[in-house]
Amino acid sequence: MKSYREELVFNIPSRMDFVNITDRIQGAVRKSSIKEGLCLVNAMHITASVFINDDEAGLHQDYKRWLDELAPHEPVSRYLHNRTFENNGDAHLKRQVMGREVVVAVTDGKLDFGPWEQIFYGEFDGRRKKRVLIKIIGT
Amino acid sequence: MKSYREELVFNIPSRMDFVNITDRIQGAVRKSSIKEGLCLVNAMHITASVFINDDEAGLHQDYKRWLDELAPHEPVSRYLHNRTFENNGDAHLKRQVMGREVVVAVTDGKLDFGPWEQIFYGEFDGRRKKRVLIKIIGT
Amino acid sequence: MKSYREELVFNIPSRMDFVNITDRIQGAVRKSSIKEGLCLVNAMHITASVFINDDEAGLHQDYKRWLDELAPHEPVSRYLHNRTFENNGDAHLKRQVMGREVVVAVTDGKLDFGPWEQIFYGEFDGRRKKRVLIKIIGT
Repeated sequence: MKSYREELVFNIPSRMDFVNITDRIQGAVRKSSIKEGLCLVNAMHITASVFINDDEAGLHQDYKRWLDELAPHEPVSRYLHNRTFENNGDAHLKRQVMGREVVVAVTDGKLDFGPWEQIFYGEFDGRRKKRVLIKIIGT
Repeated sequence: MKSYREELVFNIPSRMDFVNITDRIQGAVRKSSIKEGLCLVNAMHITASVFINDDEAGLHQDYKRWLDELAPHEPVSRYLHNRTFENNGDAHLKRQVMGREVVVAVTDGKLDFGPWEQIFYGEFDGRRKKRVLIKIIGT
Repeated sequence: MKSYREELVFNIPSRMDFVNITDRIQGAVRKSSIKEGLCLVNAMHITASVFINDDEAGLHQDYKRWLDELAPHEPVSRYLHNRTFENNGDAHLKRQVMGREVVVAVTDGKLDFGPWEQIFYGEFDGRRKKRVLIKIIGT
């Protein structure tokens, strides 16, 4: 069994945004030289997500509005968590809806994807450095 | 390390429904002849889910009503995504709540499950052909 | 490839609560003697979660209030599922928001975590015995 590890680094200029990282994950699979296995991709921070969905700008706007309805950023006093030095209580909730991680099959040296699957980094408390972990195991 | 891959195909006659696929996943584990490992089961489409919960008809109705409250199908103009040729904006949101995938332990050649765990395919934009991927790795 | 399996048992005295299980998962990784691989941690029951987030008491209160807003416990007649002998319909919905499982990379014999990642058992229908499964595979 082989294993491969890589980190991606982000510094998103807005509070909330989504970045397509599919090519970078596919690049990691290539570098791993693993042909059959599983690829874990997870946010290393607890106010961010990694998720799989469509690369369509309207949908991403829909996600942002919907997440702000489910877990509004303001008033920041709404969240007990914000009584610490933080104001990102909403980001911890949004991240649970969108998920921390994805696990993707690796088949014949490639991400084994359906026709529209794309991997996104989801940021809910940006303007600071964050990391994503890629871990691939297989043969 | 061994690996095994199989696809399941669905064409659900309604917009939203849930199908118990536990026996088919257990069948794949048997065919794989893997005794100890991990089994990934994921929707290959971005308006569908694979999730684990109870096989109880009332609960499934509860899920449908709740998901329609969290992300209503209508008015379809509610979603910017529907300004493309689609009308399935809600399905992309519902799928995030229910999740894309499950990872299940394989122990002694079987799905290593608690007493009530059952695997479901969750469709949120049916009446078209969709696929589910099973990937098992282990020894 | 090596594999390791362990169960944790919980009996939470309240209906809803969160328990930090990070040290117990790290202990399992140590006992497995696996250095590079993947660690699956999942609730074996369908009204409970395993999730990764912050160990901050205010945030946990925020999660509880938010989950009770998204899926109220009462009136219990709200859920068709409660027409069976159960009154835990809400717990099945809350668990989908928070997720069933996490998959964590194992690197150099340790959980490969960002600075604030902690693993929690999330109970939504307590006062009964429940189990969590740990399955680790790797080399």
